[in-house]
Amino acid sequence: MKLAIYGYGNLGRGVECAIRQNPDAQLFGVFTRRDPASVKTLTGAPVFAADSIYAYKDEIDLVIICGGSATDLPKMTPALAKAFNVIDSFDTHANIPKHYAAVDAAAKESGHIALISAGWDPGLFSLNRLYASSILPEGRDYTFWGRGVSQGHSDAVRRIPGVLDARQYTVPVPAALEAVRSGSMPELTTREKHTREVFVVADEGADKATIETAIKTMPNYFSDYDTTVTFISADEMKASHAALPHGGFVIRTGKTGLNKEHTHTIEYALTLDSNPEFTSSVLVACARALCRMAARGVTGCKTVFDIAPADLSPLTREEIIKKML
Amino acid sequence: MKLAIYGYGNLGRGVECAIRQNPDAQLFGVFTRRDPASVKTLTGAPVFAADSIYAYKDEIDLVIICGGSATDLPKMTPALAKAFNVIDSFDTHANIPKHYAAVDAAAKESGHIALISAGWDPGLFSLNRLYASSILPEGRDYTFWGRGVSQGHSDAVRRIPGVLDARQYTVPVPAALEAVRSGSMPELTTREKHTREVFVVADEGADKATIETAIKTMPNYFSDYDTTVTFISADEMKASHAALPHGGFVIRTGKTGLNKEHTHTIEYALTLDSNPEFTSSVLVACARALCRMAARGVTGCKTVFDIAPADLSPLTREEIIKKML
Repeated sequence: MKLAIYGYGNLGRGVECAIRQNPDAQLFGVFTRRDPASVKTLTGAPVFAADSIYAYKDEIDLVIICGGSATDLPKMTPALAKAFNVIDSFDTHANIPKHYAAVDAAAKESGHIALISAGWDPGLFSLNRLYASSILPEGRDYTFWGRGVSQGHSDAVRRIPGVLDARQYTVPVPAALEAVRSGSMPELTTREKHTREVFVVADEGADKATIETAIKTMPNYFSDYDTTVTFISADEMKASHAALPHGGFVIRTGKTGLNKEHTHTIEYALTLDSNPEFTSSVLVACARALCRMAARGVTGCKTVFDIAPADLSPLTREEIIKKML
Repeated sequence: MKLAIYGYGNLGRGVECAIRQNPDAQLFGVFTRRDPASVKTLTGAPVFAADSIYAYKDEIDLVIICGGSATDLPKMTPALAKAFNVIDSFDTHANIPKHYAAVDAAAKESGHIALISAGWDPGLFSLNRLYASSILPEGRDYTFWGRGVSQGHSDAVRRIPGVLDARQYTVPVPAALEAVRSGSMPELTTREKHTREVFVVADEGADKATIETAIKTMPNYFSDYDTTVTFISADEMKASHAALPHGGFVIRTGKTGLNKEHTHTIEYALTLDSNPEFTSSVLVACARALCRMAARGVTGCKTVFDIAPADLSPLTREEIIKKML
């Protein structure tokens, strides 16, 4: 399968690396809105201007769109689905139905297949919520994120006057995880599930107390959480907080038996050194499935719920039955 | 969907309970090789003679076959697939390809759909091995079982002269689990991965040392493991070892990045109070998917790898996109 990368940030670079780990995938090139001459790829893959992609319509099997969910993907994915099979990692949960409808209309009209919201959440975590709730209908599931860097929260802190740089870690509360695993199906508030740790590089003349208050009282982002703020130097930020780790847990507990006397716990956990590289690895596996579904004539917008697991694997049907079942 | 249970042991009773937790499922009845008059079901479901099932061909959407893998299922599943949509939980890993071929031929000839080897291993653990290996191609996966009762090992101990009753627990070695989670991709021997704990009720006159040696040196079952043997009273067996808990872990670690500098861990864990009831819950969710696939005209033998996750859920497409993605 010949894949194109559309957008070349952390995610695009991750996809470039992931493609090298899959012998059946080939990178046609990277498409960027920047001046192509100014972009140097990690692996030497060719760089093209974003607008020129339509000229390569017949040479690309699928486009992996690596834009942001806030403003890029709502425009890019429906537009590109008019000419290509596409995948994105749209992750604004509340807007997924609207995005789905727009992409589905475009893909159906053009006779292409599209997959939105692939990655780990939405993505693998969604799959685990679905599997677990289908198997244990009388139960409850919980999603915890972290320990990991939230880019959105880090950006929000960077916009506070006097802040030069910031990194925010989302951290699940161990006692909450244990309460969930016990099968007691607790009601947990936002504050009980996660804490937030913020590391800040402040301007020399800035008032640290004011910055700390601005962070801790910020609505939506921090005011509902127990937040710790630590001021560090620019050097320490560079040395200790350059990576983008993340992960989390999807846990469902449920009851079975004639009188619901038995409790079961299904737990799915990810511990990721690099959030964008792992998301990229999911996207490339999904690209394989989409190309196979496209070859079978499937069109329109799909989600991870529509992909038969066998289609994700490079192995043959006989091999997966023999080795993995 | 109208479901029939074929075989009424622990698994059949579990399916009977699981059906009650799924409003879209209805139990037509239980089919048994015993005298139907001698069988009393947990929920009062009607009991029929196994051989009479063909008379109800048009009233049953799918048969959940609850027989043993050693001798029952290799005969029952292909035979019933000639007249019904069927699901089994065939779990003799080495014989799956042969069983698959027999069931596929029967189901294709009759125009029915069949699913073999559904449950948690094979089943959910298989799915997790497939998802994880497709996403992290440069990595390694490990499956651990337990802490849980192995019926096969318990039965093997019961066959030793002087043993009145026995219960065997398979236990994963914590140090091995930690080594795997670290991402070091260790080579682990059978002995390093699991220990075995055996509880024995011995005949009054039996020589306990002889029994203990017979257990610990039993080839295939115990000789490759560190095994502890504890002699207990029949009362203690009844009080403390009547349940059938099980569970385990599928863990894959893998590398990503330009120079494979990042490590990721994907872990799936089950903690089950009742092995047969949980397996039953998987079977009923799979029955839903099979009925939907049958309605779309799909025939032949399938595995969990062929089921699009959306088909497992009682919710509509719109609901799962909105609530779970």
